[in-house]
Amino acid sequence: MNINIAVLPGDGIGPEIVAQAQKVIDAVASKFDHKVNYTNALVGATAIDQVGNPYPDETHEVCMNSDAVLFGAIGDPKYDNDPKAKVRPEQGLLAMRKKLGLYANIRPVTTFPSLLDKSPLRLDIVEGADFVVVRELTGGIYFGEKGRSEDLKKAFDTCTYTTEEIERILKLAFSYAGKRDKRLTVVDKANVLATSRLWRETAQAMEADYKDIEVDYMFVDNAAMQLIQWPKKFDVMVTENMFGDIISDEASVITGSLGLLPSASVGVHTSVFEPIHGSYPQAAGKDIANPIATVLSAAMLLESLDLLDEAKAVRDAVNESLDAGVVTEDIARDGKASKTSEVGDWLANCIKKN
Amino acid sequence: MNINIAVLPGDGIGPEIVAQAQKVIDAVASKFDHKVNYTNALVGATAIDQVGNPYPDETHEVCMNSDAVLFGAIGDPKYDNDPKAKVRPEQGLLAMRKKLGLYANIRPVTTFPSLLDKSPLRLDIVEGADFVVVRELTGGIYFGEKGRSEDLKKAFDTCTYTTEEIERILKLAFSYAGKRDKRLTVVDKANVLATSRLWRETAQAMEADYKDIEVDYMFVDNAAMQLIQWPKKFDVMVTENMFGDIISDEASVITGSLGLLPSASVGVHTSVFEPIHGSYPQAAGKDIANPIATVLSAAMLLESLDLLDEAKAVRDAVNESLDAGVVTEDIARDGKASKTSEVGDWLANCIKKN
Ligand SMILES: [Mg+2]
Ligand SMILES: [Mg+2]
Repeated sequence: MNINIAVLPGDGIGPEIVAQAQKVIDAVASKFDHKVNYTNALVGATAIDQVGNPYPDETHEVCMNSDAVLFGAIGDPKYDNDPKAKVRPEQGLLAMRKKLGLYANIRPVTTFPSLLDKSPLRLDIVEGADFVVVRELTGGIYFGEKGRSEDLKKAFDTCTYTTEEIERILKLAFSYAGKRDKRLTVVDKANVLATSRLWRETAQAMEADYKDIEVDYMFVDNAAMQLIQWPKKFDVMVTENMFGDIISDEASVITGSLGLLPSASVGVHTSVFEPIHGSYPQAAGKDIANPIATVLSAAMLLESLDLLDEAKAVRDAVNESLDAGVVTEDIARDGKASKTSEVGDWLANCIKKN
Repeated sequence: MNINIAVLPGDGIGPEIVAQAQKVIDAVASKFDHKVNYTNALVGATAIDQVGNPYPDETHEVCMNSDAVLFGAIGDPKYDNDPKAKVRPEQGLLAMRKKLGLYANIRPVTTFPSLLDKSPLRLDIVEGADFVVVRELTGGIYFGEKGRSEDLKKAFDTCTYTTEEIERILKLAFSYAGKRDKRLTVVDKANVLATSRLWRETAQAMEADYKDIEVDYMFVDNAAMQLIQWPKKFDVMVTENMFGDIISDEASVITGSLGLLPSASVGVHTSVFEPIHGSYPQAAGKDIANPIATVLSAAMLLESLDLLDEAKAVRDAVNESLDAGVVTEDIARDGKASKTSEVGDWLANCIKKN
């Protein structure tokens, strides 16, 4: 098939790691006989520097015309350290989310056998953990009405959700569960919050349409505990924006492989695939950054286009590289580190010869 | 000194575990020459059964006239399993919190060397962790205006905070930090929420009054990660109601000693000391429940009355009992379990002879 990918490398290590993901996609395309068209576009600090806007209209056009967006990372210390900066790289991300209608953030949490000793959890607790956190991304208290009283001594934030918003993301979560172990955990605080009660009612009403999925409901404080005590019990977790922010970040550290985790942001118009780590400016241009999270994001991209064998080929290659110790310095043993570009080359070759 | 303690044993294992805490307090009183007057009062399911109200006025009077409240646990399956029950035991807790103005929940998280292998975290990560979570208990989104649109398709919750509410609990948190390692972490989401910005501004303004305390600010999603990655870095954490609910529950499982953790709820009129675990109805009356969390709550009670040596005597006895293996079946090794009452007797004797 023909695949149109918008490539937004962004800042810091973004360009280097995205380049490796492209090598991997190219290898898959040649092996499985697909034609991939890449269109590069500016985002983040790079975009501010060049055209004064962290998410230029031109970039938005490129994204809108793509089947999927491959995203690197954004953020530059020169903006972080300047409190007077009028435009910030991060605003590019928010503008992109909004304009592309990215309503769901998907974070798979998997363990890598060769990295388990980096987990803060006990081996027997974390080994084999494999779940997905689905977070609502455009609603809730982060986007609600907020403000301060006139005397400045009182502040408020409002959390709102509509049945429509909740149904949309629950559909996605049910469908993820259907492709996995068919278990869905709805995380809320329905014993206290009106919005959570709407989430729970909506999910309960949808259960009938997904009879093959086993649904359970868990309060967010309980979920925060169980993630640490029994991470293996989860398959797909779905929750509102703020709970998802906390839970997905908590989940990202339990496997000890924060630098290896990919993500997808599913949108109304297209979807964006990116590593969960940042732009790591100290490492930029040094060919030392770990490209695996971006490569695994490319696997999610392929999966989103229903190219399941292709996605599996990428994941198999990643596992082989970890087993073979062809890894960057952040996870290397005994000082045997490969360069970013070497890891990309190795993965591409591995896919071709497998 | 004369100490007036309101004793509210509550339901399930409540009476048994509170009885052990009283033995311990009596031992301390005799050793340090204090006079303790206990006044028992009804709360929870027991109170509903006897007088139809889970927090009767009479109980409230007893609490108001006390220097401190020693609380067991509430909850009974016969109410949980009856969706039509008009009054529930848990309402007693809410009524008590409200009427006594319990605005802060304090949860110390400590590790017990003999129990570290029960922690879900790696030994080297958790060993020596020792911090306190201070949670605001009467404000925020749990108590804000909430509701549903007329067509029921939209729900909302409101989070509000005033400078006064925030200052009150920050004062308490600063004073806890002053008595400990002099480090305070304010947990918020000030990059997104208006209420969090008010929290942060208020804390920043108070820093000048507590020059000996090192203050840092952490977003709640980051705190949820760091609690697992580096629990030893924290001394006192303070946060708003909902974040505190999530963070304090997450914190309670990292040491593997959930059943041993005490708490204090600090009030305008008096303060309440109770284990963080529940009423464990399956074990009620069997003399097998672990009394340590309640005994350590009694230590917090003594501390709140500035009886620091007395509190230390209780904690030393608890550590000795753990080292000696005089423990209930939930944490016993090699089947060598003591009864609830035996642990209480052992602790009381230990305090007297030390
Ligand atoms: Mg986050
Ligand atoms: Mg809780």
